[in-house]
Amino acid sequence: MTNLSQSTSFAPPPADKTALEQGTALTPRFGPDGLIPAIATDHESGMPLMLAYMNAEALALTIKTGVAHYYSRSRQALWKKGASSGHYQDVLEIRLDCDQDAVWLRVHQHGPGACHVGHKSCFYRRVSGQDASTAQLEETAAKTYVPDDVYGKDQPS
Amino acid sequence: MTNLSQSTSFAPPPADKTALEQGTALTPRFGPDGLIPAIATDHESGMPLMLAYMNAEALALTIKTGVAHYYSRSRQALWKKGASSGHYQDVLEIRLDCDQDAVWLRVHQHGPGACHVGHKSCFYRRVSGQDASTAQLEETAAKTYVPDDVYGKDQPS
Repeated sequence: MTNLSQSTSFAPPPADKTALEQGTALTPRFGPDGLIPAIATDHESGMPLMLAYMNAEALALTIKTGVAHYYSRSRQALWKKGASSGHYQDVLEIRLDCDQDAVWLRVHQHGPGACHVGHKSCFYRRVSGQDASTAQLEETAAKTYVPDDVYGKDQPS
Repeated sequence: MTNLSQSTSFAPPPADKTALEQGTALTPRFGPDGLIPAIATDHESGMPLMLAYMNAEALALTIKTGVAHYYSRSRQALWKKGASSGHYQDVLEIRLDCDQDAVWLRVHQHGPGACHVGHKSCFYRRVSGQDASTAQLEETAAKTYVPDDVYGKDQPS
């Protein structure tokens, strides 16, 4: 038996805004869908690797294990990053933002990349142009691995 | 008369996943609430400054003007960051993630900070501890300005 039910219980957010924003109580504010966005950055380069979502269980497991867990909205399931690819993320630091509705993870990314498309970072395309209707995306970096070699026919993670 | 209606029209996301993830068409995927999350990082230090949301108008204006615009969920209104504080964000680069449902802005942050609480970054507290129910938040940096001196009684931005 594990104490999972206990360890996923975060304290509820305080009504007082100052307590929420400047206090020491960890009271993450999950959205109506039960999720909170989490940005993972590379601990060496500082580069954003991915933006994903966590439910309470995923955040609690990340805090507990030091390995990044998310909630896959497409699969509607807990998602231990790297479970099928081996591209785990060791979490060096977890931060919450002022109103505790966003998470920042500083991670050591295992393997050649965080992105299932084959890139180091999911943010591999920049916007070029100044008009919404005509702006384009252009690649900023080459792929670092071949996804089929890693995932086969499995779902990426 | 402006061409705002034109410039906020993004092309719809393609049905083909490979086109979405590896093509050159900018087709941001706004959520059911019409919003997309955007992480802003400091262009020098790489540090995440804030995570906020954009509607199509905010993203289009950011692309067009090179100054960060968001959508304030609390005020339910377009939010030009810095409008009341002077703490504007010049945008050096805009990136989209693989499935185009997240935005990354590399910005030059004007003024002493991005956070309305008085910090350089909204992510000024780290999680300490390994259990959800007992973990605490601890500050990582001192404030860089006094919010009352900047905002008075106005709504922060």
